[in-house]
Amino acid sequence: MDLIKRRRSKPGTAPGTLHHTSDDALTPLRLSVIDYRNNEFEEYDNLTIEQAQPYFASPRNTWLHVQGHPGPDELRSIGDAYGLHPLAVEDVINAGQRTKIEDYPQQKFIVLRHPVLHDDVLDTEQVSIFLGHNFVVSFHGGSKDIFAPIRYRLRKNPEGRLRSLECDYLLYALIDLIVDSSFPVLETIGEQLEDLEDEVLKDPKRSVLDKIHLMKRELVLLRRAQWPQREMLNTLLRDEHKFVKESTKIYLRDCYDHTIQVMDLIDNYREMSSGLLEVYLSSLSNRMNDIMKVLTVIATIFIPLSFLAGVYGMNFDSTASKWNMPELGWPFGYAMFWLLAIGIAGGMLFIFRRKGWF
Amino acid sequence: MDLIKRRRSKPGTAPGTLHHTSDDALTPLRLSVIDYRNNEFEEYDNLTIEQAQPYFASPRNTWLHVQGHPGPDELRSIGDAYGLHPLAVEDVINAGQRTKIEDYPQQKFIVLRHPVLHDDVLDTEQVSIFLGHNFVVSFHGGSKDIFAPIRYRLRKNPEGRLRSLECDYLLYALIDLIVDSSFPVLETIGEQLEDLEDEVLKDPKRSVLDKIHLMKRELVLLRRAQWPQREMLNTLLRDEHKFVKESTKIYLRDCYDHTIQVMDLIDNYREMSSGLLEVYLSSLSNRMNDIMKVLTVIATIFIPLSFLAGVYGMNFDSTASKWNMPELGWPFGYAMFWLLAIGIAGGMLFIFRRKGWF
Amino acid sequence: MDLIKRRRSKPGTAPGTLHHTSDDALTPLRLSVIDYRNNEFEEYDNLTIEQAQPYFASPRNTWLHVQGHPGPDELRSIGDAYGLHPLAVEDVINAGQRTKIEDYPQQKFIVLRHPVLHDDVLDTEQVSIFLGHNFVVSFHGGSKDIFAPIRYRLRKNPEGRLRSLECDYLLYALIDLIVDSSFPVLETIGEQLEDLEDEVLKDPKRSVLDKIHLMKRELVLLRRAQWPQREMLNTLLRDEHKFVKESTKIYLRDCYDHTIQVMDLIDNYREMSSGLLEVYLSSLSNRMNDIMKVLTVIATIFIPLSFLAGVYGMNFDSTASKWNMPELGWPFGYAMFWLLAIGIAGGMLFIFRRKGWF
Amino acid sequence: MDLIKRRRSKPGTAPGTLHHTSDDALTPLRLSVIDYRNNEFEEYDNLTIEQAQPYFASPRNTWLHVQGHPGPDELRSIGDAYGLHPLAVEDVINAGQRTKIEDYPQQKFIVLRHPVLHDDVLDTEQVSIFLGHNFVVSFHGGSKDIFAPIRYRLRKNPEGRLRSLECDYLLYALIDLIVDSSFPVLETIGEQLEDLEDEVLKDPKRSVLDKIHLMKRELVLLRRAQWPQREMLNTLLRDEHKFVKESTKIYLRDCYDHTIQVMDLIDNYREMSSGLLEVYLSSLSNRMNDIMKVLTVIATIFIPLSFLAGVYGMNFDSTASKWNMPELGWPFGYAMFWLLAIGIAGGMLFIFRRKGWF
Amino acid sequence: MDLIKRRRSKPGTAPGTLHHTSDDALTPLRLSVIDYRNNEFEEYDNLTIEQAQPYFASPRNTWLHVQGHPGPDELRSIGDAYGLHPLAVEDVINAGQRTKIEDYPQQKFIVLRHPVLHDDVLDTEQVSIFLGHNFVVSFHGGSKDIFAPIRYRLRKNPEGRLRSLECDYLLYALIDLIVDSSFPVLETIGEQLEDLEDEVLKDPKRSVLDKIHLMKRELVLLRRAQWPQREMLNTLLRDEHKFVKESTKIYLRDCYDHTIQVMDLIDNYREMSSGLLEVYLSSLSNRMNDIMKVLTVIATIFIPLSFLAGVYGMNFDSTASKWNMPELGWPFGYAMFWLLAIGIAGGMLFIFRRKGWF
Repeated sequence: MDLIKRRRSKPGTAPGTLHHTSDDALTPLRLSVIDYRNNEFEEYDNLTIEQAQPYFASPRNTWLHVQGHPGPDELRSIGDAYGLHPLAVEDVINAGQRTKIEDYPQQKFIVLRHPVLHDDVLDTEQVSIFLGHNFVVSFHGGSKDIFAPIRYRLRKNPEGRLRSLECDYLLYALIDLIVDSSFPVLETIGEQLEDLEDEVLKDPKRSVLDKIHLMKRELVLLRRAQWPQREMLNTLLRDEHKFVKESTKIYLRDCYDHTIQVMDLIDNYREMSSGLLEVYLSSLSNRMNDIMKVLTVIATIFIPLSFLAGVYGMNFDSTASKWNMPELGWPFGYAMFWLLAIGIAGGMLFIFRRKGWF
Repeated sequence: MDLIKRRRSKPGTAPGTLHHTSDDALTPLRLSVIDYRNNEFEEYDNLTIEQAQPYFASPRNTWLHVQGHPGPDELRSIGDAYGLHPLAVEDVINAGQRTKIEDYPQQKFIVLRHPVLHDDVLDTEQVSIFLGHNFVVSFHGGSKDIFAPIRYRLRKNPEGRLRSLECDYLLYALIDLIVDSSFPVLETIGEQLEDLEDEVLKDPKRSVLDKIHLMKRELVLLRRAQWPQREMLNTLLRDEHKFVKESTKIYLRDCYDHTIQVMDLIDNYREMSSGLLEVYLSSLSNRMNDIMKVLTVIATIFIPLSFLAGVYGMNFDSTASKWNMPELGWPFGYAMFWLLAIGIAGGMLFIFRRKGWF
Repeated sequence: MDLIKRRRSKPGTAPGTLHHTSDDALTPLRLSVIDYRNNEFEEYDNLTIEQAQPYFASPRNTWLHVQGHPGPDELRSIGDAYGLHPLAVEDVINAGQRTKIEDYPQQKFIVLRHPVLHDDVLDTEQVSIFLGHNFVVSFHGGSKDIFAPIRYRLRKNPEGRLRSLECDYLLYALIDLIVDSSFPVLETIGEQLEDLEDEVLKDPKRSVLDKIHLMKRELVLLRRAQWPQREMLNTLLRDEHKFVKESTKIYLRDCYDHTIQVMDLIDNYREMSSGLLEVYLSSLSNRMNDIMKVLTVIATIFIPLSFLAGVYGMNFDSTASKWNMPELGWPFGYAMFWLLAIGIAGGMLFIFRRKGWF
Repeated sequence: MDLIKRRRSKPGTAPGTLHHTSDDALTPLRLSVIDYRNNEFEEYDNLTIEQAQPYFASPRNTWLHVQGHPGPDELRSIGDAYGLHPLAVEDVINAGQRTKIEDYPQQKFIVLRHPVLHDDVLDTEQVSIFLGHNFVVSFHGGSKDIFAPIRYRLRKNPEGRLRSLECDYLLYALIDLIVDSSFPVLETIGEQLEDLEDEVLKDPKRSVLDKIHLMKRELVLLRRAQWPQREMLNTLLRDEHKFVKESTKIYLRDCYDHTIQVMDLIDNYREMSSGLLEVYLSSLSNRMNDIMKVLTVIATIFIPLSFLAGVYGMNFDSTASKWNMPELGWPFGYAMFWLLAIGIAGGMLFIFRRKGWF
Repeated sequence: MDLIKRRRSKPGTAPGTLHHTSDDALTPLRLSVIDYRNNEFEEYDNLTIEQAQPYFASPRNTWLHVQGHPGPDELRSIGDAYGLHPLAVEDVINAGQRTKIEDYPQQKFIVLRHPVLHDDVLDTEQVSIFLGHNFVVSFHGGSKDIFAPIRYRLRKNPEGRLRSLECDYLLYALIDLIVDSSFPVLETIGEQLEDLEDEVLKDPKRSVLDKIHLMKRELVLLRRAQWPQREMLNTLLRDEHKFVKESTKIYLRDCYDHTIQVMDLIDNYREMSSGLLEVYLSSLSNRMNDIMKVLTVIATIFIPLSFLAGVYGMNFDSTASKWNMPELGWPFGYAMFWLLAIGIAGGMLFIFRRKGWF
């Protein structure tokens, strides 16, 4: 759970210091640049930092995307090349940031958490985006190229809004993709929940408990990762920025609406998993009850009978006196014993049935 | 539970793209138009999209109602014909929207959830309404014609407020009907709750637990579907819209009051069902207690007696020494055994009764 | 619980339609009018609607009180006579309203819930009050004349504030009476709670659970009925009404203070009843524990002893070999058996006592 | 618990009516007056109401303190003498008021709850304070003279802030003393909690449950009594009163800080006592578990052995056929029985140990 | 837990009185002064109060750090020397303050709680900081020199922001260090939680319960200590102070972001430890279930068998009548007994397995 583990430099270090956190292997970076305006469109992949730099000065809209975990030196080069604020750049390398938006004089800095499922275990990857006047710089630490659909739309649709509008609409498209990527993840979780529900109702084993426990933890983490999206979008919508145009706001508002739906779904799932836990625990109690009933019925029927059999197994000397166990000598003594035994058992069964025990 | 399942197009798709979500069978659409102002009243049913279009331009108030799940193409035609905003139209086709209100330059867009009971299982259907300057376009995906009472009032009462006032009052009438349709549903749920309560208090079976669990889930879903109504009505009431007249607001305020009553009822039911769960669980504990008492009383009485019987069933050789089981040879040994046994049993019963165990 | 049952007309009916809800028997109405100003005072009882009407036009303060459930026709007559708003009048007949205040151009409309105890079961009756410029119209559906003390003060004290001040002070007096009438009810509930607490601590039977459950439900309902009083009084206090004078506000503020005390008491009682449930459940667990201890002590002592007795009741042929049950032939075999048995029992008792089991 | 019991006059009584609530015995009043300004200082004790009155008109600061429960007549005299508002005076006699502040044209009226421990049981006594332009009137119903330290500081320190500043600083000193008097009470409660914690962890008896229950109730009551202090001080701090000078506000802010610390401690204690309940309940479960384990180990070992002994105690006639219990005649039959028995017991113990049951 | 224990002077004492709270041993103070501006830098350690005083008047930025618990007299000297407000100085000596910020005319006073782990037990130490126009006075009661990294950065980096900016940036650096020092503590707690989780899932012993209980208490205390940091930083950020420059605010905002991350982690841990408790309790129930199953299976199989053996151990006289226990004389009686016994046992096992009991 990366929200918990990854931490920053030692307390007391100067702010903006870039340290490499050892548990992220340094993956090779992959820089791609798209330089576009209306009909003009240039796309370059696998650039070096030096190759990427000239596009910053281009009068067209420039989108630099950095895939992989950059090291402190690489990040400093990129930051210097594009004039990114050191405090924000520090947050790019410390990959355990919450979703947030920060205002710097020359740019906006946005952190998002992209939820992914690795073998049915939820993880969130950090996506950091800088929005300048005519450029967007985005960082994504994971190995999958999540922004491929956006790049495809930019490349293929020269008359689309992505090409005709400014960088703020590109920012919206990136945010919208991250927000919407919660839905498939939530669908998978929803299916897991339904499977769990079936298991709980049919055959509540010990392992179900651990699964519910894990599910609840995942939902707590997901909620915490998604919750600040609303605030972030609200900040984007409410403030009068020179960065975000009025025409883009209607789309951001739609995106805000999606974050509310995501939170809604998560809350539904949380209440459902709490409900599952309740049901699991009470079916445990039910089982215990059933087991106790069987034990009690069997024991309370046979314990008196065993006593009776024990009585007639005693060795009192019937020759010493006629009061000593005369029943043993009766011709129908054994038959009477069985009658008595069956009578007791029948009576008890009758009482237990009336009490509704079985 | 349609709040959870139906989802929209793939992350990264351009906003406003209309996709058909496969799990809704394409039902034949039924378009009906009512064109009215004071004494003028025209009503057409089973129109095609082309036939419905001219009424848009009519200077009178026009209400177009679309019954059924429209496909992307049909929806695009309707949207284009009436100038509906693409983002809003996208929400019509993705039927898992929350209750909300959205402001577009040319119209207001309102989504409502209409609660229905299918075989005692709660479902909510989406109703989408567009309010323009002199038209209302409403979409309802279900098969039942829920707005028949409104149409009846329009048709039959030429002097009624519905005819004499503008489109905003028609909008109020539609919203009011959806809000009030929660009451019969809640009444049914209330009756189910009372039945459940009887069952829990009289004969708490395992199946009751599942029913309470389902009831709680339904109430959670209903609450989530109804909760945003307050906010939606508040937005309608507070903002100065050119769409909603001051004279209609007094009625909307009454409608707002109803939504509070709905939430109140739902909260009451939720607390009642939580209470039921508590009562169920503690009557389980009570039962376990009763069962344990019976087992304990029977076992603790007969276990010592069985031991005693066992003792006198031992085969120590009384001829080897006079210390070996002399009781067996006593003339009243057997009688004394019974006296002892009855004494032990009586004493234990006395103790248990004093402890209040039965 | 009348907060849950009574419901209004069918969804889709025109607002302001008056329907008779069948479960309220039509009780004969009793109209009384008090017409007063300073030294002038006229009081009439058992008027017809026609007889009551002229006082509306009187320049003095007029208080019309309607006792009983009016039918739709009667209500419409009264509403028309006094110029009451149709939407408000609809709320008078649908007796399941929440406490609220509504502003109409010609009057204020206030709904209050008057708590009563019928055979120790809590109920709330609706009191509806209209405040006009120089009149108050109040409706109360119950059979008891709750406003008798106010009428007495009006009648007997010509120099009292009630006579010398305007209608807004009369409104305050009516509200204050309803708010304060919660205190005796709460006192009764408090006494019931203390009885319950005694029962739980001394002898926790099954029936206690149902009583606590009912108590919690009553408190939830009472809370919901009283909660909106604060908001209602706040609205009266904050808004600049032409209806409520500044001099009356100091009294309304005192009344507001009382509603806070009522909520405080209810919250105390709720936490107490939750605490009782906890105590009940844990004393159940305690009991189970005690029962298990007794069973375990008796069973674990006698089960090994019974085995021992069983062993010496076996019939191995001691003539076949000297290894077969030689103990049976020992002169002190029986005595040694008892020594062994008492030793085992004593040892177990010692262990159990050291574990603190009894 | 006096927050619950004491109640005011009957619903419908005129506001400001003074009734004597019967359960407070009329204790003899003790009026003391301190009349001071800078170096001038006069102190009188045990005055009658008439004797106290002239100091009201004194141009110096006057502090009248009334110790004991005044009757309605006495209170009316004092109220009339000092011009106190009837509604506020009514709250003095009804000693179950919440902490609050009220603004009257000629004075401020403040109610505080002074927490005391009577034999380790928490109670709160009402302290009512009126602040006028150059006087303070304080009422305290308890028997202990809680304001002695203030009087001492006034008397002994002619250059202290108490003497040199105005009445608002005296008010601050009184409030500060009441607020701070929570700390020793909370310390005692804290010690009780630690004792309870020791008891729960070492030897969880039934009585602990009742103690935790009482502790939680006390903390709920204390919280409710202290909670409104923050609001009260905030009102004093925020509003521009002519009564409270800017120079005093810095001290009131310090006092506000203390109330936050009090709430913090109470919340800590509440969470601790909830934690204790959890621990108590789960150690009950643990115990039950232990008891069940012992019972199960003993029973499951000896029940099969007893069966075995029972088998060889059967009386099948071995002379009738060589198939009837030939074991009884084997020379090592008895030895083999013991081997078998020990083997079974050992095997079971081995299994139970591997399951970790003891 | 020092949030609970340490308390201030007796209620009724004059504000600003300095008392020594006896449980803090008077440790020898260690005063160090750093006097700096850009390239000028002087550092003195182990000064007396008199020696430290002259630097107050220096036109450069002066940082006086006081390590250890000062006594009332020492504190008064320092307070007088630097013109610190008596109410704030009182809070320095009473070391149980919450995190807070206070505005005094000549300075700002900030209290922070520095979390430390002593042998895996969480404690928080108080750090008090005064910010004047060109000085910072900081107090830290613990024995470790926590500000060493700041001093190192001041000493070694003459061009760093710490040297070139004013005292407000030094204040930021101190606050940032305290805030960030939560992270290593939280990491340790996180590791403890993971160990606990392993223990709970693998082998839930009684001791785990106490550990979870302690963990929850620590997290409650830590939360309470950290919670007010947000408010404190917000106050610093929002108000227009002459003390904090605009350029420093961007760093304080970054620091504010860290406090949110701290709260996030704490909340995660709290939910995780609550989850652990749930899992612990339900695995207890699971165990009880398993134990009951074993007992029930063994007992219900052997109890009927024992009865059967008891029956054939009875001594009915088969010579008295041919109806008395004829089975004993059958040639295959014993074999039939075993067949019957094995049949019963097998049947029961079959039933239990079908019920899924083992």
